[in-house]
Amino acid sequence: MTVTLTAKRTLTASSGVRLNLDNINPHVKAAKYAVRGELAVKAEEYRVKLAQGDKSLPFDSVIFANIGNPQQLDQKPISFFRQVLSLLENPSLLENPEALRTSFGYQQDVIDRAKTLLADVQSVGAYSHSQGAPIIRDSVAKFIEERDGFPAKPQDLYLTGGASSGVSTLLNVICDGPSAGVLVPIPQYPLYTATLSLLNAQCVPYHLEEHRAWGTDVNAIRENLAQAKAAGTDVRAIVVINPGNPTGASLSAEDIKGVLDLAAEEKLVVIADEVYQTNVFTGEFISFKKRLRQLQQEVPGKYDNVELASLHSVSKGMVGECGHRGGYFELVGFDPEVAAQVYKYVSIMLCPPVIGQCLVELMVNPPKEGEPSRAVYEKEYNGIRDGLRKRAFALYEAFQRMEGVECQEPQGAMYLFPTITLPPKAVEAAKAENRAADEFYCLRLLDATGVCVVPGSGFGQKENTLHFRTTFLAPGTDWVERIVKFHSEFMAKYK
Amino acid sequence: MTVTLTAKRTLTASSGVRLNLDNINPHVKAAKYAVRGELAVKAEEYRVKLAQGDKSLPFDSVIFANIGNPQQLDQKPISFFRQVLSLLENPSLLENPEALRTSFGYQQDVIDRAKTLLADVQSVGAYSHSQGAPIIRDSVAKFIEERDGFPAKPQDLYLTGGASSGVSTLLNVICDGPSAGVLVPIPQYPLYTATLSLLNAQCVPYHLEEHRAWGTDVNAIRENLAQAKAAGTDVRAIVVINPGNPTGASLSAEDIKGVLDLAAEEKLVVIADEVYQTNVFTGEFISFKKRLRQLQQEVPGKYDNVELASLHSVSKGMVGECGHRGGYFELVGFDPEVAAQVYKYVSIMLCPPVIGQCLVELMVNPPKEGEPSRAVYEKEYNGIRDGLRKRAFALYEAFQRMEGVECQEPQGAMYLFPTITLPPKAVEAAKAENRAADEFYCLRLLDATGVCVVPGSGFGQKENTLHFRTTFLAPGTDWVERIVKFHSEFMAKYK
Repeated sequence: MTVTLTAKRTLTASSGVRLNLDNINPHVKAAKYAVRGELAVKAEEYRVKLAQGDKSLPFDSVIFANIGNPQQLDQKPISFFRQVLSLLENPSLLENPEALRTSFGYQQDVIDRAKTLLADVQSVGAYSHSQGAPIIRDSVAKFIEERDGFPAKPQDLYLTGGASSGVSTLLNVICDGPSAGVLVPIPQYPLYTATLSLLNAQCVPYHLEEHRAWGTDVNAIRENLAQAKAAGTDVRAIVVINPGNPTGASLSAEDIKGVLDLAAEEKLVVIADEVYQTNVFTGEFISFKKRLRQLQQEVPGKYDNVELASLHSVSKGMVGECGHRGGYFELVGFDPEVAAQVYKYVSIMLCPPVIGQCLVELMVNPPKEGEPSRAVYEKEYNGIRDGLRKRAFALYEAFQRMEGVECQEPQGAMYLFPTITLPPKAVEAAKAENRAADEFYCLRLLDATGVCVVPGSGFGQKENTLHFRTTFLAPGTDWVERIVKFHSEFMAKYK
Repeated sequence: MTVTLTAKRTLTASSGVRLNLDNINPHVKAAKYAVRGELAVKAEEYRVKLAQGDKSLPFDSVIFANIGNPQQLDQKPISFFRQVLSLLENPSLLENPEALRTSFGYQQDVIDRAKTLLADVQSVGAYSHSQGAPIIRDSVAKFIEERDGFPAKPQDLYLTGGASSGVSTLLNVICDGPSAGVLVPIPQYPLYTATLSLLNAQCVPYHLEEHRAWGTDVNAIRENLAQAKAAGTDVRAIVVINPGNPTGASLSAEDIKGVLDLAAEEKLVVIADEVYQTNVFTGEFISFKKRLRQLQQEVPGKYDNVELASLHSVSKGMVGECGHRGGYFELVGFDPEVAAQVYKYVSIMLCPPVIGQCLVELMVNPPKEGEPSRAVYEKEYNGIRDGLRKRAFALYEAFQRMEGVECQEPQGAMYLFPTITLPPKAVEAAKAENRAADEFYCLRLLDATGVCVVPGSGFGQKENTLHFRTTFLAPGTDWVERIVKFHSEFMAKYK
């Protein structure tokens, strides 16, 4: 009886209502976002089961290696940041600075910073300017100037709710309809393809070179561009993720010049996703803005018309505060009338979270040498940096030991993106389940070990290659060993 | 020489770059959002001038009555909320609860709540579930159940970054192309028309009845609907803002039934923007969910297929924490497959700000009777409520004194939306400046008094009527007198 009732209700709900899968926005339906897809949902179900005391699973913890979410795992927030934020949330604490200092170790620079920020934003509960609070944009401009050695202006900066909303804003303004195209690296972070799907615009893929540490091959990009143009696509922009996601690659000055040459020659807006700019293990991070300004000095005229939007975020790096949704983008070389439209667009959503904006300020303007919070800041910052490097290489070494797995040496970001070569029997078994082979592998991995990674198909990969993306954020080596053991059993089973 | 150089640069920047006003997304260009438009920008410029010591202006402060931004003006945040948030930002304070209690008045319920929330979210710097942290959705479901007397389920709830992003999500999923239409009240909060512009979907306006306290006239809606259908528009949803923005109206049970009848008969998704649900001066707030469930009991069958999305926010009410960007929507009666698409859509932006989510939890689950923080909470909450009522009526009374100004008695929300009748000479003067007459009036008001309000044309109004929207958040009566004095001089000038 109950069954019948439930069935009836379900039928009614699905049949009679206005909206169904076939009449909603088809572009929403078409969008794909694997990072939080089926595997992530299943992993969350396992987590809940374990938390409820379920003993039936063959593992005792879920490892969320599918998403760059540092503080969900082991990473502690940086004390200076959080001390300032706690004062911003409860300014009445500021009225008792003596007690603060003595009881809780709030140094004078923490108190001063909170006061300075509050003097500008009034309250973190008030809307700010739609581009972000003026004082915060001033600090970001100074940070960019110091990083690059070239001027930056607060009026060109747009604070955002994480870099994702910045990307969405930029693509919304740039894409004018179904013929508009944007060059996107493959593999890529699926935000780009998903947003282009939503806008019904064209993703024009260009493959990164796995054998050359996932670098860019400008000649290959030129070919993709020519093909897209021939097919009638109006290619307007190129996305570069540097350091790379999911690849972890850190681009050389020469690779960046190649992209800027192309942008200048082909009139492409450059969208430089630089959220991993402090997650660099080998060499140094070079911003697109810096390289552009250098080239503009070296070859006067040639690069004057390049439009660059460069994004940064509090989510990654040693900050790792993705739950706060803070970030910014800088517009370089944009027509002021277009910038005014960007302003109007962001103003419709009023403003990014103000506490997240304040965190951006703290990230770009941390305690300086000689200031009271500096020593602890430095210790925490370096500890996180060294831990990430250590974990990256531990994972890399584990992959070296695994049959049929090849991985580029860690360079940056928070990810490794190994190639896996699976036996034909495994590929057949996947086909029988109507799944991509890498998805099949990742699902089995999750079921057997509780380790959640994302199949390469979620990011795009060259035909006839298989990958998965894993973060190296999870602490310890136990979970890495779980992968090694699973892999060897999997390979044996399908040999 | 300098002039020439600057001119040349401007020319280069505007002529040679890829993007210009004529080739960006035309739907972004077409979107209008007056709340943060020309007047707001000018008001901000005046504010900066005054802050820099400029004495040339005929006023000594700018009053931002253009936007519901309580904490920018006078409203203090509620202590319980901010105390918990400060502990969430700096959990190390929790390790010293004794000192906390003695030095800073953190009551035990503050400490307990922070611990409970942290046990679920782990860190406010970590991404949460894309629909929002489970514990927070549990609290929201309980709140809705208690408010309405009908069950609510956490899985039907979607935490958002303010109600605006929720509206954007819903309209993105609902609108499937240029023929899709959504019924929107006129006057309306321009988020709706702007988002429909961005989606290249049709706004189907229906006029609210000013003479009936801005109530809804279902017969008029039916006419608008029929006309839109005849013109080929596929009308899919109806937006209701209750209590109203910009009108301040609070809908009766009968008006709500009228809308739900229409939705049931015409298969319209109901988008109930209920962010002002606690800002009600006369009568009581009735949620669309409650009314729907009542009607479903009263007339079995008739309302089973109604889909309702109901929105709430931490930005308004006595909370007033708009800078934190927190909110939620509940989906009622949606096809689970459509809900899955809503989930995927929000997951592309990862999650709403976690500290804002926690604030939603505190809003819906404030200290209860007998708990240590209750007395202060109640005092603060009631103080804000009474202050808003007092200011609303003071402003209303001032409008009564003004020639050619008519205003409905305050009922709710944070706004008054008076009609103004301007002399023909003023209308001509506006025309000469190529401006709508109400825009002309508001601009003169700002220039003369520093009071920034929004012209009725920014919200939509019946042809041949003029209005402006003002919040009643600003403290004191000085600014109200500035309006009265300006108005009388303006009327005399153009008599």
